[in-house]
Formats: sequence, structure tokens, C-alpha cells
Amino acid sequence: FSVRQTESAYRYRDIVVKKQDGFTHILGILFVMKEIQSAMATAASDDSKLVLFGAVGSVFCCGLDFLYFIRRLTDDRKKESIKMAETIRTFVNTFIQFRKPIVAAVNGPALGLGAALLPLCDVVWANEKAWFQTPYTAYGQTPDACASFTFPRIMGLASANELLLSGRKLTAQEACSKGLVSQVLWPGTFTQEVMLRIKELVAVDSLVLQESKALMRNTSRSALEQANERECEALKRIWGSSQGTDSILQYLQRRTELC
Amino acid sequence: FSVRQTESAYRYRDIVVKKQDGFTHILGILFVMKEIQSAMATAASDDSKLVLFGAVGSVFCCGLDFLYFIRRLTDDRKKESIKMAETIRTFVNTFIQFRKPIVAAVNGPALGLGAALLPLCDVVWANEKAWFQTPYTAYGQTPDACASFTFPRIMGLASANELLLSGRKLTAQEACSKGLVSQVLWPGTFTQEVMLRIKELVAVDSLVLQESKALMRNTSRSALEQANERECEALKRIWGSSQGTDSILQYLQRRTELC
Amino acid sequence: FSVRQTESAYRYRDIVVKKQDGFTHILGILFVMKEIQSAMATAASDDSKLVLFGAVGSVFCCGLDFLYFIRRLTDDRKKESIKMAETIRTFVNTFIQFRKPIVAAVNGPALGLGAALLPLCDVVWANEKAWFQTPYTAYGQTPDACASFTFPRIMGLASANELLLSGRKLTAQEACSKGLVSQVLWPGTFTQEVMLRIKELVAVDSLVLQESKALMRNTSRSALEQANERECEALKRIWGSSQGTDSILQYLQRRTELC
Repeated sequence: FSVRQTESAYRYRDIVVKKQDGFTHILGILFVMKEIQSAMATAASDDSKLVLFGAVGSVFCCGLDFLYFIRRLTDDRKKESIKMAETIRTFVNTFIQFRKPIVAAVNGPALGLGAALLPLCDVVWANEKAWFQTPYTAYGQTPDACASFTFPRIMGLASANELLLSGRKLTAQEACSKGLVSQVLWPGTFTQEVMLRIKELVAVDSLVLQESKALMRNTSRSALEQANERECEALKRIWGSSQGTDSILQYLQRRTELC
Repeated sequence: FSVRQTESAYRYRDIVVKKQDGFTHILGILFVMKEIQSAMATAASDDSKLVLFGAVGSVFCCGLDFLYFIRRLTDDRKKESIKMAETIRTFVNTFIQFRKPIVAAVNGPALGLGAALLPLCDVVWANEKAWFQTPYTAYGQTPDACASFTFPRIMGLASANELLLSGRKLTAQEACSKGLVSQVLWPGTFTQEVMLRIKELVAVDSLVLQESKALMRNTSRSALEQANERECEALKRIWGSSQGTDSILQYLQRRTELC
Repeated sequence: FSVRQTESAYRYRDIVVKKQDGFTHILGILFVMKEIQSAMATAASDDSKLVLFGAVGSVFCCGLDFLYFIRRLTDDRKKESIKMAETIRTFVNTFIQFRKPIVAAVNGPALGLGAALLPLCDVVWANEKAWFQTPYTAYGQTPDACASFTFPRIMGLASANELLLSGRKLTAQEACSKGLVSQVLWPGTFTQEVMLRIKELVAVDSLVLQESKALMRNTSRSALEQANERECEALKRIWGSSQGTDSILQYLQRRTELC
């Protein structure tokens, strides 16, 4: 297997990409966007039957790095907000357009983009200790990764708005009963249970896997691309305003480190 | 704040409209349609960040007033059934087209239109003592307030049909697990808990609230308007038939007062 | 009532069709497709207000008969795979296009097509002992009966993929909480409870039942027909390949009789 240690689009970070028997295992923090895109591009064309996302340690994904963001926004707000929105748009489209199954093994807290992306994965197994939060309004932002489109469809607007407007925190069990998570697995045997299930999936014929995914995603692909587009346009408007930058700054000052 | 005591479109009723710090609080029985529409028109253009619906007493909403209905239908069936369907269409469109978040605080039983309207609200908090029922077929009616469109999308047809065809009654917890309700709150502290959450929402920048709502409602608005249209056409056909009027009469004779 | 004992499209089987007071009761194994289609065609035009599906014994439906399938496929793969897919397409369209309510009383295990069809029914009551499984990938097949379209809409992709890709088995309670089942009823009184509810539904005016169903299915009918079309095209491609036939053979060799 190959290990890449690299400078991400937004910050120095490690991700580990293991090409295993029948699948590609990406271990890391989701927001190292360019690296993940490149690992997915490779997995799309090699003999991987699926991609498995996971993370090392106790956290799944903390979402975007706002400290890095704010530094760029203070530089040249208009230009940087367009570039940042564009980066997110491309990253999210990589998930929307991926033809092989994407499995997420959520080992711990999944925040912001890290939680919003889950409905663009095909199967989501969560450690019973994981939790989920999309506190977009807390830092004055609108939803991304198509969450404004996928969350209402999965759980109805009543629940989706609580998550996306009120930033309600969900336990793994709650996320499962709302349809964000396929199944909750026990902490002690999480990795083994995930690997057992991956083995079963990898035993399925590739054609069947890809035809099944194509059938299940058929009607939603262009709707997702449009939702992604609309969300990124909204982010540009918000990041491009002085009020938007202020909200992020205020959030950074009062937040306690979540993960 | 302003208190209006008024003759509603259908019956003498009180509603209380309080313009509070950052939001408009409408307390009353939902079916005083014209008054609610006018309060919402005001809230749409003033500095209210959201509208909060609630009710005084132990009941949230008993739905349409059938005694009043039947009196009008016996007068001139064809003409009155068209006028009544038109009133409902306009009222429901007020909810569909409202650009600021609508929050419902369901303090007690929500019946018929009062339950059907909930998916057109953005956040729904329910008192643990509340319950929900849409017994349309019991009085020979088809669904309204887009329930025939929203219920199947929120909970699947299997559950939606039980509610809309069989008139199954749901507890607050059941309504929550089916996605009609965002969260169930304890009776003792219901109002305080609602106000606490409203304060948090009102602290969010208006632009972010409206952009978020626009993103989440984007693809459904015209579909909802069409569903409303189709439902009102069906109601006209049913109310306009002698069988339709008979069904309501029979219902009124055998019903026990629910609330 | 009439009892027909007949040679089905695929195998000798009994189904019992009882025309009862206000409804048509079809008792049998769902995959005797031609017989069911003909019973539904009759029920569509007679005075039945609804169709009730059930089964005699402890099993609801075991899905397609693969032994019979494989015999035909070994005969003339290209020709037979087209004919078989066409048979399924027509059968599934009978459900999609049926204008009166379809109720399913799931007395026991529902597998493959028998589980996949449930979202095309309007109300689904399940015996607490029933269970549900769609192990398509286990025999190298892609979903049918529009499950690739309906399952993600009802429960979200995270759950739908676990059922359709990983073949996860659901208890009646799990199927209910995911929205496949309207309500779970106790084994001891299952039939009585179903009949009680059927009586209530049959008391509703036919016009109201049909207008309600039309409203609730309005936007999905052509989308379902297209999903059915796409699924059958995928089945033709898979059954038409030597790999597809091999997968079914391997499955038949290693499977333990499920029901």
C-alpha cells in the first residue's frame, strides 16, 4: 500500500491512503480536500470496488478549518471567498459524481462538512461514541455539501432545520433513527465489525455494485449538483460580506475547542 | 405589543399577535385564516426574524370548523364549496411562500388542518402531552395543506396512509419518530424551553436565516403550490357533491367533541 | 367467493382470491405474477374498494423462484433474460398503476420482490414475527420492484444501501421504524386486527379513497415507471451475462432454505 504524507489544500495534515484487497481505504480528516480528491480519482479508475473513509484517533472530522479560512478572508475577501466556495464545490462534486460505493466508518465526532457529507456516502457505520453536529448558524454560515437538500429528504424539514438552523447535536443512535447513519456499532469491536462488512461488500461483483449505485442515485445526481451550486453561491455572498467575516471571527473568539 | 380581537373568516375567535424582540408570536387557533394571513403579511415585511405559532390553553388547533362549513354548504353548495376551497388554497399558500422561518410550538392536540400544516413550518416543538390526528376520511374529505405531498415524503407512504386514510392518532413521541415533530419537550417547562430555543434562533443573522430557508425549500416550493392546487380541486369536487355534504353531516352527528 | 387454483407464470402454485364485502382479498405467494395481475385487473373494475394481500401459512413471500429462473436461463440466456425482465416490468407496473388502495398484511418473512414491492402498496401491516430481507447482491442481482427508487426515499440512502447492497435483515419493528411498515401487530390477533382495520377503510366512500390515493401518488407515478424500466434494463444486462447466471447458480448451491 502507499502512504502519502502531504501538504493539504488548507493546512498541513496527514492522510493515509491504503489500497487494499478490493477497496481503497482513506484514513484522515475529511477537509484535506485536494488530497482526498486525488485519492478518489485514483480509486475511481483502479480495481477498487469501493472507497472506505475512516479516521485515525478519536475524531472523525472537525469540518472546515476556520482559523485558516479567516486568515485568507481578511487578506482579500471578495477574491478569497470565491476561491474557497469553488474549492468546496469541486470537492463536494467529487462525492456526488463517484460511481463506486462510498462507505464511511464514523469513529468519533463528525462536525460541519464532516457530518453534512454523510448523505453523499452510500453506507455509514457509526461508533456508538460518535456524535454529529452541523452548527452552521453559530458561525454565521449557510449549509454546504448539499445538506440543505439531503437532510430534509432523509429526515423531514422539522428535524433537518433543528440540525442546520439550531445546530442540535445528535448521538449516534439519534443519527441512526433519523436516517443519517446505517447502523451503530459497539466501540470495542468497531473496526473489526466494519472490516467484516467491507469484506462482504467487496465479495460482490463490481458490475452489480456499480449498477446498483447507478440505479439508486439515478434521479438525484443533477439535483445534487444544482443544490451544491446554490449552496456555494450562498456561501460566496455570505463570506463576501463584512458581516459574514465578523460572524466567523466572533465564533472563533467564543468557541471552546470541540475536537 | 398589539392585541387584535377580531371576527375571523369563519367564526368569532381571538388571536393574539405579539411583536416581540426579533420575532412575531401568533397565539391562537390556526383556522382563523384571514387574521393569520394578515399577521403573517405584517411579519414578512417588518423586522421579525421568524414567526412563532402557539396557542393559549390546552389545545393547539382543532382544524376547520365543520359546523360553520356545513351551514354554508347547505346554503349554496356549488358556490360555497368553490369559495371555501379558495380560502384554504390562499391560506396554505401563505405558509408555502413565507420566506422567514416558521416555528410551531404545539402545546396540545393538533387535528386536521392543524396537523397537516406542520410540514409547512420549519421547526416543530411539541409538548409531550400533544397528539396528532388527520381523520379526513372520517368526515368524507381528502387531505389539505399539502399533507398528501408532504406526509409521504417525510415518513413514507405506509405511515402517511395510516394517518390520512385510517386517521391513526399519534402521540408526540410517535410524531417525532415519524419526522413530523423536531423534538418533544416536557410539559412542565414547555414554554420556557421553547423561548430559550427561539432566543438562540433570533440571535442568528437574518440573511443567514433567510438564505438557509431558501436553500432548504428551493426545490419544493412550486411542487407544494401544485399539490395545494390539486388538493383544493379535489375538495371542490367532494364538497360540491351531495355525498360530500352528507358525509360531513353524518360525522357531526356521531362525533364526540375531541377538543 | 371464487377460488382459483391455477398454473402460475413460473410454477404450479395456489392463490386464493376472495371477493368479499367491499374488497378483494388475494391470499398467496406474491410471485405467481400472472394470476395476481389478473385478480388485480378484476378488482380494478369491480366494486372492490381496495385490495388486501396476505398469505396462508407462516411465510409472506419468498421472492422469485430462482430454481425455475436458472433452468430457463440455461436454456437460452439472451432470449429468456429479456422475457423474464419483461414479466417483472409488467407485474410491477400493475402495482404502480393500480388506482384503489392496496393493503399488505405481512404475516411472516418477506424476501426479495416480496419485500421490495411493499412501498408500492399503500398500507402495510406486519405481524410482529415477520422479517424483511432484500439480499439482491447475494445472488448477483440488482434491485427490482422500484426498490432502488422507493427505499432511499423512505429511509434515506444509508439504510437503503444496507438493505439492498448488504442484504441486512430487518425485524418487523425495525422495518416499521424505517418506514417500510405502517404498524406492527401482535401475532395472536394479527388476522382479527387486520380485518378490523380493513372494515374501517371499506366504510370510507370510494371516491374519497381514490381521490386520496391519486393525490398521494400523483407526482411519483411516472417516476416509478421510469425506475421500473431502468431496473429491468439492468436485470437484462446482468441475467444476459454468463457472470450473472453463475452468481445465481453459486447462490443456489450455498443457500440454506430460508422459507
